[in-house]
Amino acid sequence: MEQRKPRTLSGFMELSPARQVQFDRMVTLLRSAYSLYGFTPLDTPLIEASDVLLAKGGGETEKQIYRFAKGDSDLSLRFDLTVPLAKYVALYYSQLTFPFRRFQIGKVYRGERAQRGRFREFYQADIDIIGDGALDIINEAEIPAIIYKVFTSLGLNRFQIRLNNRKILNGLFDVLGLSEQASDVMRTIDKLDKIGANKVAALLQETCNVPAETALRLINTLLENDPLLALEALRGQNPLLDTGLEELSTVVKYMSAFGVPDTHFRVDLTIARGLDYYTGTVYETVMLDHPKVGSICSGGRYDNLAGYYTDRVLPGVGISIGLTRLFFVLEDQGYLNESLLTAPADVLIIPMTEDLSPSIALATRLREQGVRTQLYCEQKKFKQKLSYADKLGIPFAIFMGEDELAQNVVTLKNLITEKQTSCTEDYALAKIQAYCAQRAEGAPIQDKYRIAGLNI
Amino acid sequence: MEQRKPRTLSGFMELSPARQVQFDRMVTLLRSAYSLYGFTPLDTPLIEASDVLLAKGGGETEKQIYRFAKGDSDLSLRFDLTVPLAKYVALYYSQLTFPFRRFQIGKVYRGERAQRGRFREFYQADIDIIGDGALDIINEAEIPAIIYKVFTSLGLNRFQIRLNNRKILNGLFDVLGLSEQASDVMRTIDKLDKIGANKVAALLQETCNVPAETALRLINTLLENDPLLALEALRGQNPLLDTGLEELSTVVKYMSAFGVPDTHFRVDLTIARGLDYYTGTVYETVMLDHPKVGSICSGGRYDNLAGYYTDRVLPGVGISIGLTRLFFVLEDQGYLNESLLTAPADVLIIPMTEDLSPSIALATRLREQGVRTQLYCEQKKFKQKLSYADKLGIPFAIFMGEDELAQNVVTLKNLITEKQTSCTEDYALAKIQAYCAQRAEGAPIQDKYRIAGLNI
Repeated sequence: MEQRKPRTLSGFMELSPARQVQFDRMVTLLRSAYSLYGFTPLDTPLIEASDVLLAKGGGETEKQIYRFAKGDSDLSLRFDLTVPLAKYVALYYSQLTFPFRRFQIGKVYRGERAQRGRFREFYQADIDIIGDGALDIINEAEIPAIIYKVFTSLGLNRFQIRLNNRKILNGLFDVLGLSEQASDVMRTIDKLDKIGANKVAALLQETCNVPAETALRLINTLLENDPLLALEALRGQNPLLDTGLEELSTVVKYMSAFGVPDTHFRVDLTIARGLDYYTGTVYETVMLDHPKVGSICSGGRYDNLAGYYTDRVLPGVGISIGLTRLFFVLEDQGYLNESLLTAPADVLIIPMTEDLSPSIALATRLREQGVRTQLYCEQKKFKQKLSYADKLGIPFAIFMGEDELAQNVVTLKNLITEKQTSCTEDYALAKIQAYCAQRAEGAPIQDKYRIAGLNI
Repeated sequence: MEQRKPRTLSGFMELSPARQVQFDRMVTLLRSAYSLYGFTPLDTPLIEASDVLLAKGGGETEKQIYRFAKGDSDLSLRFDLTVPLAKYVALYYSQLTFPFRRFQIGKVYRGERAQRGRFREFYQADIDIIGDGALDIINEAEIPAIIYKVFTSLGLNRFQIRLNNRKILNGLFDVLGLSEQASDVMRTIDKLDKIGANKVAALLQETCNVPAETALRLINTLLENDPLLALEALRGQNPLLDTGLEELSTVVKYMSAFGVPDTHFRVDLTIARGLDYYTGTVYETVMLDHPKVGSICSGGRYDNLAGYYTDRVLPGVGISIGLTRLFFVLEDQGYLNESLLTAPADVLIIPMTEDLSPSIALATRLREQGVRTQLYCEQKKFKQKLSYADKLGIPFAIFMGEDELAQNVVTLKNLITEKQTSCTEDYALAKIQAYCAQRAEGAPIQDKYRIAGLNI
């Protein structure tokens, strides 16, 4: 047979077994955090008919889409989880109950330029709450609580949720006579974080036709130390601005009731989010010690999820975590908790008798008690058998020989401490269970920069 | 905006929220069963370079492959999880420890003819044990134990694992002078179950050039009541047959030690498995009350996993469950346990006060205790709020009004029994936790045909 060199496509993450365990742990924690907030899991196809998937028009994404023919069908791989959600909600509208709260964790595809830390296949972990005709503002206050819960349960501490309200921005533009160029202004002020106030002021004048004085006033307002207080001074001048201010104040008020500590959120009027369809609260989440990473969890409120599929008005609010990129960053920056148990088993049984039945029976018993057990029966030297467990990080070995059988005991070796004891099966079971329960408790992320009580 | 009718491609399963919960429960149980036996999770890309994925030659599958160009790249969607495993093991050989035990649960793609119960996108749930140069026979005995564990933990009872050994078949063909036409004979006897002995005898004569008497002798041997005993009579005539007999006897002996009851397995010499690459033990698993469904879990021993990628000899043994099809069959045949809690939340809090803070604080507290909680704050009539919980199957509602606040109690309503009580938060918490723990205990499959102590 002619041989091919095995390879994995560039831009496609493929993890080592130990790293995969850590990634999966993150997914498990995300699932349970989302579930606690009453979201139901959804799983939609990775392939959709192109005319359905691209109904909205892909915009910048369209060039990146994996699109192909199969027979007579024009097909595309999903590039996010929002369009499939819009399709799902429009398609099954009559069978769903609203507000519809769903989470979805799945792979999406974008043929981006290959680049370190950029992926063409990556997981998104999304939640959305979809209303039927209306959706109460309280939902916009609950979202940051979920973000907070998610990242703290993963073990991250030094992060901050930044929020704004698009109505405030649009109201402000109105007050300043910038309504016509609102989209361009929005995109420009989104760069404040990256290029600074001076360059943004220049850009506003050059590319958005904003008078110098107006640009300055806008930037100064956006960068106010206490933005809510500063905006109060503008109350009554513009109904949209007033509504936005009302909404943002409500969200901030209830966020505290939802348990988000003051240290972990901040109103930031420069947060605009590029996407046109956001209409109310918008969110970004940054790692305080890695500002260059950008937002690790973003989203916002939109007035209509599925206008390109249905006449029903379906307002919603949602967020998305780019899980693959987040995992890459965490590994790259040394955030992964290396003391988590990533071995494929808690114990390796090494039979030392001709008849394997007693060892097999012990394995069966341990498994019934929830202990992840491997039997090692390959024809190798004893040292090689132990080395197998060592390499995989399996914490315990049990030797089962004629002597042990005769005395109704086992030999248990802790491969970390190298301590070896002769004990009953029950004792071995309890030892292994206690140790593994403790090792399993750790969070997948270890925030090195964590300082107790730090006021960030 | 021009509207598109939303639709999902035919052959792509998309579940309702409640069904998705049941599907996910099955995946969770599979993951934990596989983990108990010391398998590590793996996740490989859905897209591979076509020259890599099709290195082995796709055979019959090749026509069904989703293959397309993106830029200069010739890409294909994976059609199983075995080829990606072969690639993974060959690519990362030096970093892996052998025997390498991995499980993978993921979607694969085959552009089959659209047909009821046939899917183009479907989940496979695979385990494989890969040795480096050699792999002990004990692994072939452990596999049926895993199959047994998996299906019983899902709640299925009336199933049977059928096993055979390819060396026995090939040895038998040798004894009968049929070595030259072995492949054709193998494929023909694989039909015994479907078309019966007479038709297979005729086919063997017509299409495989087998003399009538030999065909009869072969079929009679394969259909012996006690096949192992019958084969003993042939011992010494053919070394391959002897080895196969030895292997099968060992597997059967150790299967019992591994905890597979006699009722749930049977040696069946007619099991051939179409694939050429099996070389030892082969497995099929049938639902006893639905023989037409065919095998729901199949696999076997192979001598070389990745010959088309590497010179290293990597023997292995593995099985695969077609999870999407299995789920379809289970739903279709009424096997899904409808009493499992599939609601997105355990409790719905309905605030009856102007200020939502006390309700929010209660939600936060319940969530901290692991209770999946939703707050209902939409502007609806009281009856509609309750109807929301009813439709979703949420078992409890809590009303939080001024009276409750003043008395430091909550009103807890069990929406199943319609009983309503005024109680402390602690009492409500305990009630909800106890009820949901009980509802969560059930298996996703309810085997209606289960008869206690039945000897199948």
